[in-house]
Amino acid sequence: MTPSKLHLDDLEVGQVFHSSDYYVSADEITEFSTKYDPQSFHMDDDLAKDSIFRGLAASGWHTVGITMNLLVKSLPLANGIIGTGVEKISWPRPTRPGDILRIKAKITEITTSPSKPDRALVRIHICTFAQDNRMRQELLGKLLILR
Amino acid sequence: MTPSKLHLDDLEVGQVFHSSDYYVSADEITEFSTKYDPQSFHMDDDLAKDSIFRGLAASGWHTVGITMNLLVKSLPLANGIIGTGVEKISWPRPTRPGDILRIKAKITEITTSPSKPDRALVRIHICTFAQDNRMRQELLGKLLILR
Repeated sequence: MTPSKLHLDDLEVGQVFHSSDYYVSADEITEFSTKYDPQSFHMDDDLAKDSIFRGLAASGWHTVGITMNLLVKSLPLANGIIGTGVEKISWPRPTRPGDILRIKAKITEITTSPSKPDRALVRIHICTFAQDNRMRQELLGKLLILR
Repeated sequence: MTPSKLHLDDLEVGQVFHSSDYYVSADEITEFSTKYDPQSFHMDDDLAKDSIFRGLAASGWHTVGITMNLLVKSLPLANGIIGTGVEKISWPRPTRPGDILRIKAKITEITTSPSKPDRALVRIHICTFAQDNRMRQELLGKLLILR
């Protein structure tokens, strides 16, 4: 079932959105990193064994991309998800080949301006977990919502 | 000429690194967004015309990925660029098809811990500009540097 589209007045602080699962293959990890983070520990399992990661590890930016993919599918905003910025990202541990990622996204603040009543700034806290229930990424983002 | 690899003792606060150029095609914008930010204003020029972006706009995460690609090529750290987190990202305006991006990365802080003298936390301020010299992205990142 496609969830119905959400407008500003449908959102409230404390609302939580859960995503479906996303399987991360070694091929996807190396394909992403070759283009956007071309370092050996993200591209080559053998070379990665001798690195701080001790085995192939996804780029943190790849974990971000998968998180955004899952957010788009689980937060159906009527005007789309328009990020204006990020206030924090941390990667407590890297995404690995075979990880199955999912996200939990919580709305933490909704701010409207008297001078611009047609738009709101929404703060969202997104945690990305894998199948072991350990966090791979924490992100605090700011979204622009049009009324 | 490949620059020689930099170690912790080669870094100092205020150092600036400039990248080469990166041409962004419409095809690359739609390919990235289809995988990692599947929203119509990032994937389809016609649909984007009716959006807040008024034309095809790259995902902010795509601008981040290109920035990381350019950072890897312009900051040759001996142990690689290992990001532990991000303290800020802002996108004052989106990357567009035909943009030619480049970055300016400045080291703003180097912190070593008496208990872990073999590693340092380095803060880096990365501005991503296009051919019009206007900023597409500002990012404050934290890197782990091994001695």
